[in-house]
Amino acid sequence: MNNVKIERLLINYKTLEAFKQFKEYGNQELSMLEDLESNMVENNSESPFYGIYYGDRLIARMSLYRVGKKYDFYFDPPQDYLELWKLEVLPDYQHRGYGKAMVEFAKSYELPIKTNPRIKSHGFWEKMGFQKAHYEMERDLGENPLIWLPDGVKEKEIAHPS
Amino acid sequence: MNNVKIERLLINYKTLEAFKQFKEYGNQELSMLEDLESNMVENNSESPFYGIYYGDRLIARMSLYRVGKKYDFYFDPPQDYLELWKLEVLPDYQHRGYGKAMVEFAKSYELPIKTNPRIKSHGFWEKMGFQKAHYEMERDLGENPLIWLPDGVKEKEIAHPS
Repeated sequence: MNNVKIERLLINYKTLEAFKQFKEYGNQELSMLEDLESNMVENNSESPFYGIYYGDRLIARMSLYRVGKKYDFYFDPPQDYLELWKLEVLPDYQHRGYGKAMVEFAKSYELPIKTNPRIKSHGFWEKMGFQKAHYEMERDLGENPLIWLPDGVKEKEIAHPS
Repeated sequence: MNNVKIERLLINYKTLEAFKQFKEYGNQELSMLEDLESNMVENNSESPFYGIYYGDRLIARMSLYRVGKKYDFYFDPPQDYLELWKLEVLPDYQHRGYGKAMVEFAKSYELPIKTNPRIKSHGFWEKMGFQKAHYEMERDLGENPLIWLPDGVKEKEIAHPS
């Protein structure tokens, strides 16, 4: 997998058409399409999405968003972190290391990462070194966030009622 | 469906055992179990969960959490709202109005409601009068929130880059 190239995806009609192949197609993609149609964003401007092309075909993608330190309720010390979502490899290309390559790309920023896997995939995330965040209702609201800690970073301790 | 009784569920081993029947069993439930085992919460204390019993069996549940006005990024004017999650009716009891009864119970608080349906169920939420929130990346991070607006409440306008 040494020659896998992760590319930052451009917002254009071709990318948005390719996104329709992925299960987790939702408001975010529709909003990007509207912004493009109404010229609120320029064609070929940079998106929060990264992906892998196999020939001409987009076969994997994820979104990465850098969350500012003041919104960090997960890590100790508090710091900027990456929120990763919509990591998805098209069915025909799964189990070949593309998902792993995407996660390793995210880790290369050397920031803590939080993700909230929507599809049952805890085995994968565990292999990638992610762990469950301790559940805090006011923060997680029924979600099951997973976190990855680079060296020197700990999970923020939760104050439990005593 | 006039005689459906929505009950606030107590945190005890019986409730937590019943929760295992539901698909969306995750960190929240495990955390409640740990808190109970370590006496961090008392047996029979109130949970954020509401449910419907059919005889002795818990057949539907949801969690409702009141989010304070200062964390309201969805409604105009800003106000306390309800975050609804894990609404689920067991398969054998679906399509009998239990889900609707749960949502109507939530609406009876006369607060705006936000939910983030994890299972494909947009048809249901539309029938319940919910609408898609306009997507804002910094806030929604790849999620597809749906909102319900009581009389006199509007969706907060989003400032688009011009």
